[in-house]
Amino acid sequence: MGLKPARFRKTRVLRWQQGSRAIAAADDVAAEEPLEVRVDTRPIVVTMRTPGHDDELAAGFLIGEGLIRSREEVLKISTSGRNDNGNVVDVFLASTVSIDFAKLNRNVYASSSCGICGKASIEAVHRHFPKIERGFTIPASALLGLPDQLRSGQETFARTGGIHAAAVFDGLGRLVVLREDVGRHNAVDKVLGHGFLNGLLPFDQHVLMVSGRVSFEILQKALAGRIAVVAAVSAPSSLAVDFARKSGQTLVGFLRGDRMNVYSHPRRLFPVAPAPAGKPTVKTHSGRKRPPDRAIRR
Amino acid sequence: MGLKPARFRKTRVLRWQQGSRAIAAADDVAAEEPLEVRVDTRPIVVTMRTPGHDDELAAGFLIGEGLIRSREEVLKISTSGRNDNGNVVDVFLASTVSIDFAKLNRNVYASSSCGICGKASIEAVHRHFPKIERGFTIPASALLGLPDQLRSGQETFARTGGIHAAAVFDGLGRLVVLREDVGRHNAVDKVLGHGFLNGLLPFDQHVLMVSGRVSFEILQKALAGRIAVVAAVSAPSSLAVDFARKSGQTLVGFLRGDRMNVYSHPRRLFPVAPAPAGKPTVKTHSGRKRPPDRAIRR
Repeated sequence: MGLKPARFRKTRVLRWQQGSRAIAAADDVAAEEPLEVRVDTRPIVVTMRTPGHDDELAAGFLIGEGLIRSREEVLKISTSGRNDNGNVVDVFLASTVSIDFAKLNRNVYASSSCGICGKASIEAVHRHFPKIERGFTIPASALLGLPDQLRSGQETFARTGGIHAAAVFDGLGRLVVLREDVGRHNAVDKVLGHGFLNGLLPFDQHVLMVSGRVSFEILQKALAGRIAVVAAVSAPSSLAVDFARKSGQTLVGFLRGDRMNVYSHPRRLFPVAPAPAGKPTVKTHSGRKRPPDRAIRR
Repeated sequence: MGLKPARFRKTRVLRWQQGSRAIAAADDVAAEEPLEVRVDTRPIVVTMRTPGHDDELAAGFLIGEGLIRSREEVLKISTSGRNDNGNVVDVFLASTVSIDFAKLNRNVYASSSCGICGKASIEAVHRHFPKIERGFTIPASALLGLPDQLRSGQETFARTGGIHAAAVFDGLGRLVVLREDVGRHNAVDKVLGHGFLNGLLPFDQHVLMVSGRVSFEILQKALAGRIAVVAAVSAPSSLAVDFARKSGQTLVGFLRGDRMNVYSHPRRLFPVAPAPAGKPTVKTHSGRKRPPDRAIRR
């Protein structure tokens, strides 16, 4: 590879404020360029992405689709050649690996026999990726520092205000990898691909943190990387919540300041201490008391 | 169609703040469900969307892909039948219309002969959709009220904090249509589809406003609807800026309070008044003076 690809670009802009004259200025915008991912020279997908870490993006995409699983399956990922713009990435598989290319032509959540619905989509994913069992736990308080770490690692966001980030932290809240991209799903692909290419997968003692909202697709990718805790600065969608409850993942939203909302499997964050009398309980907003896991799961 | 589809869903959540006990509560999350779009019974795409206005979403998607252009080409769009969950929408075309289904199997920005790059992507789109000439103008000050109108129309955002919005306004800043969706591109498809189904296209005297960032894809869809001014609450990507400059569209970012950034074709917002002496100029941040359009275009 040649020069490090720019993740932002200088552009001219006219700044205008009511009551003033417009002022021409220089501004940074997040770089967006298409990337074609090829597997054994066959084009698989074109995605609009922020250049950089294209090998990770390609690997992460293929992991999230369930097409590759272990490092030995990939001979080489090459981002050079074939295209002067560096917008093609070639994945070469080991000769022992065969990919069902036909599967790529339909979306994973369209392939269910029982129709098109959220439930079927979730089940289709779970046929590829088994659910996560108990095991990894992390105290809720250890998540509170993650948003600040995420933000301070977002070099391109600081310049442009227009880019998503995804990061993986270990069980002690230490940053493992952070990636930025105009596409939220691409940022997640890149952190997964980083883990894959560096022999760090599975991320089964780790937390995935994303800068924005969290949808079905993000949970699917996290599950492919065996990530048990997914935390977001903003809101989850209904299908993300359903997915996390079924997959055994702990889903945290609105992680800001000293608070958070936990949408699924809270026990991973709040270990059940031996209660002094009876079961541990939490207060509901109506004042009734229930065991925490049951309260959240229904 | 039966019941009005819910755009949000009640869910149980555990709210936790450091120093307090976790509290179980009820919360609203934005609804996300897959939708399969079929054309003449053939499945075209599955998208994760917020239920509601699925006929508009289907129509808008097909317009944005350049597959349909005029209202007469569509016999019927049916969101009922075939699927109990309402997650399939059938588009039936007039018998005189033929669609090149093969074109759907490759992405529009992958089909350029000169390789995979932003420039080729833009040119590929412009072969489908001609550039926008001068004509429509709107004073910059008329855009200042749009973010408040957008926000006050976002019923689901108010409940969930987790959904995008797109809206079309006329040249006097009056709201024509506003749609919300967990997918930003879906929200734009819905407003375009609304225009299509109600005989309002082209939106060539209109402004498209989006709640978040603005990417290549949003500009492409706006161009398909002949929208000359695209404004966003947040940042554009580099390719959105390039696209707008080539397509003749005025691109506004960071439209907040009493200010905005204009990234392309500012003359549409700042009509050139007869200057008292010489050409109209704007001050650059370096203190030099240039004609405004040239300053922005380079």
